[in-house]
Amino acid sequence: MSRSPILGWVDGENMALLTDLYELTMADSYCRRGKNQVTTFDLFIRHLPPYRSYLIAAGLEQVLYYLAHLRFTPEAIAYLDGLGFFSQEFLEYLRRFRFTGTVWAIPEGEIFFPGEPVVRVTAPRIEAQIVETFLLNTINFQSMIATKTSRVVQAAKGRAVVDFSPRRDHGADAALKVARASFIGGCVGTSCTLAGQVFGIPVYGTMAHSYVMSFETELEAFRAFAQDFPNNALLLIDTYDTLQGARHAAVVAKEMEARGQRLRGVRLDSGDLVALSRQVRKILDEEGLGYVKILLSGDLNEYKIHTILGQGGVVDFFGVGTELGTSRDSPSLGGVYKLVEDDMGPRIKLSEGKVTLPGRKQVYRVLDGKGMWVKDVIALEEEAPPAGSYPLLVKVMERGEVVYEPPSLRDVQARCAQAMSRLPQGYKELKPYPEEEIPVEVSPYLDALTAKLVETYTELERRT
Amino acid sequence: MSRSPILGWVDGENMALLTDLYELTMADSYCRRGKNQVTTFDLFIRHLPPYRSYLIAAGLEQVLYYLAHLRFTPEAIAYLDGLGFFSQEFLEYLRRFRFTGTVWAIPEGEIFFPGEPVVRVTAPRIEAQIVETFLLNTINFQSMIATKTSRVVQAAKGRAVVDFSPRRDHGADAALKVARASFIGGCVGTSCTLAGQVFGIPVYGTMAHSYVMSFETELEAFRAFAQDFPNNALLLIDTYDTLQGARHAAVVAKEMEARGQRLRGVRLDSGDLVALSRQVRKILDEEGLGYVKILLSGDLNEYKIHTILGQGGVVDFFGVGTELGTSRDSPSLGGVYKLVEDDMGPRIKLSEGKVTLPGRKQVYRVLDGKGMWVKDVIALEEEAPPAGSYPLLVKVMERGEVVYEPPSLRDVQARCAQAMSRLPQGYKELKPYPEEEIPVEVSPYLDALTAKLVETYTELERRT
Repeated sequence: MSRSPILGWVDGENMALLTDLYELTMADSYCRRGKNQVTTFDLFIRHLPPYRSYLIAAGLEQVLYYLAHLRFTPEAIAYLDGLGFFSQEFLEYLRRFRFTGTVWAIPEGEIFFPGEPVVRVTAPRIEAQIVETFLLNTINFQSMIATKTSRVVQAAKGRAVVDFSPRRDHGADAALKVARASFIGGCVGTSCTLAGQVFGIPVYGTMAHSYVMSFETELEAFRAFAQDFPNNALLLIDTYDTLQGARHAAVVAKEMEARGQRLRGVRLDSGDLVALSRQVRKILDEEGLGYVKILLSGDLNEYKIHTILGQGGVVDFFGVGTELGTSRDSPSLGGVYKLVEDDMGPRIKLSEGKVTLPGRKQVYRVLDGKGMWVKDVIALEEEAPPAGSYPLLVKVMERGEVVYEPPSLRDVQARCAQAMSRLPQGYKELKPYPEEEIPVEVSPYLDALTAKLVETYTELERRT
Repeated sequence: MSRSPILGWVDGENMALLTDLYELTMADSYCRRGKNQVTTFDLFIRHLPPYRSYLIAAGLEQVLYYLAHLRFTPEAIAYLDGLGFFSQEFLEYLRRFRFTGTVWAIPEGEIFFPGEPVVRVTAPRIEAQIVETFLLNTINFQSMIATKTSRVVQAAKGRAVVDFSPRRDHGADAALKVARASFIGGCVGTSCTLAGQVFGIPVYGTMAHSYVMSFETELEAFRAFAQDFPNNALLLIDTYDTLQGARHAAVVAKEMEARGQRLRGVRLDSGDLVALSRQVRKILDEEGLGYVKILLSGDLNEYKIHTILGQGGVVDFFGVGTELGTSRDSPSLGGVYKLVEDDMGPRIKLSEGKVTLPGRKQVYRVLDGKGMWVKDVIALEEEAPPAGSYPLLVKVMERGEVVYEPPSLRDVQARCAQAMSRLPQGYKELKPYPEEEIPVEVSPYLDALTAKLVETYTELERRT
């Protein structure tokens, strides 16, 4: 077996071909025709996905790394050449390819809404076109996971949430990026060890049923694990009988106390989690083990967590896997990447009744005196900002140079938490906020420009 | 910005930490206690996911590569050491780690059902435990996508289906692996250029609306593209008015004919695809352009394709993106990895009322005289095969050595097509086949062993 064809791999250079073929054929045609004027594309979401009331931006750091390091290797060019339809002129262009554009973006962890540009790329047409697929793939996925996690975290009402999803995530990169985006969205950590190494995210783990089964008795298994991990033992107590498991855990915890150690917690993965968690808490408390935490897991999501807490479940940690790592109730985010300006001026596309806002734009966030969110205003970048607002989009790349130091993941997480604290409660309910009532305004000037272009292009299309 | 923390990367060595932390803590405990006897674990699916009537195995080639190349680098070990709770003995063990187990698996492209081991790992306990997460991540994801694709391909009734999903897939590895697994499931190709390079999958592309918009008129855009790609031009005709677009495409096709060229096709991405495709076909046919293919796209899935064809839509190609690449109606496959045998003999786990079949097993597929599938029988490997059956599981690794040459992707695709042709029609409908009626039998001997172990362990647990 050869090496490279087997496992996918991802870095600055070899991501060049992670692009839809049509980006390259269009680029070739532009190249042959010298159609390489400066253009601006907006990456934005047309509508909220089902059940969601807001979106959280994530993935920008990977986008920046990609844009800064994007190169076409000799192998990539040889592959394209072998397809037989690319021009030598274009392949020569790719050999020298560097991304030279200017990019503005909403920082990671910030809340955004449909219609607002999350990433705005101003670059020669060919460059702007070639990067489309990777930008959409990255921003769509990570923003979707950060958003889903935020919902789960809201439902947990202050209890910790841990990402337990790697075995159900969509491949290796997904497992890494779910850990990253879910940390942004509010998880305290992940079970994905590689994400700990790569991103510095705290890693969490307990034990599997097979560990308990590998010993003659449950008590023996618990004693062994507590002995091996005296500062870090979370015991899985539902392999046989959960309440008996809790009693065994209590025995081991008392033995640990005698050695000057503390059992970290117990985990329940099945059964009636509300009733069992209350009974387990009681068993532990009666032994003076109020410090031993309870972790619940088992196909959890924001709805089940809401119910568990509403019915009086006693929990310190939620381990959430499949539903968080695949955003199961809404597993795709429909970001699009649309031309909004080129050498013909601001552009719109009319077909399908979906009007795109033209021109290079900024999004202003308006807060009230108490710091709570009032509304967003989408405006052309040369317009004066509304009173009491701050601009969401920041310049992250200028003429191909990164001009933005991505904050640490902890700072991104803190930014997300702050943004959530500024959002009125209505947006944080499980039931989605009516999208048409979300106060995202278009500035009067941008509105007038849009109307004028609709008129112009409707006329133009009539004549086409 | 440093290099590695930014983009995820995947290969033989650095996937060692793509594992849930608990695999490593359990392994450490086994290591300290010398609990490294030979065990057998089964990877299987407990129940069919919603709407599905069968599953298609995919991901084995990546699993084999991983098992053969799994190493813990000094950096990985330094990271684990820094966590502060792993024993030096275990870290030393990891430095010398090689996977030395024997693995049986259902070949890629083959159909399988719940309860059947897809991968069976016999290895020292520590090795078998450490590989769990990667195996589940890989087999769950690729099998899910191959299965989803198979449904879409069935609905397309012989028309070609192309993977258009990269911008909505869950990260970079997902885009690559969706292209691979969807090719196994029956796609003719992908828009993911990297998958073309890495896996040799045929790549397909058309053009975006922004290309058409970059010219003064649609006709001018079509002429340019046809000139640049005379053998490979698929024109997107819905940027302005689809029927007018079809007429423009016909004009260009006639001009190409005059140059001895042939327009490959047109693409419709919006509107009433049934009515429009019929009208477009008529426009093309009236110009003698019967050879120009029609490609439909735009949030398609098996249900919409079924409806489009049922209502008389005229189509040669379907481009399917989001729904295929995320398996949107069922975006996770709940594969589990369970201990079935260790030094205490065949094992079962009783809790949660989910009985696991014990021991090292084989699955026999029984065909009738015409080669149609009759039933599967799960049996212990030492049992005689049922008459007229063939074994599904093949030995792919023996004592750490790969003993199986993964077939080419085209051969895997052909195997899948053959398996589908042997499956009765009832399984291929959009409506799911009742899971309880699927003829997957447990051999009498395995059944008796299971019953005996249930009795033994129920007694044992009562005493625990």
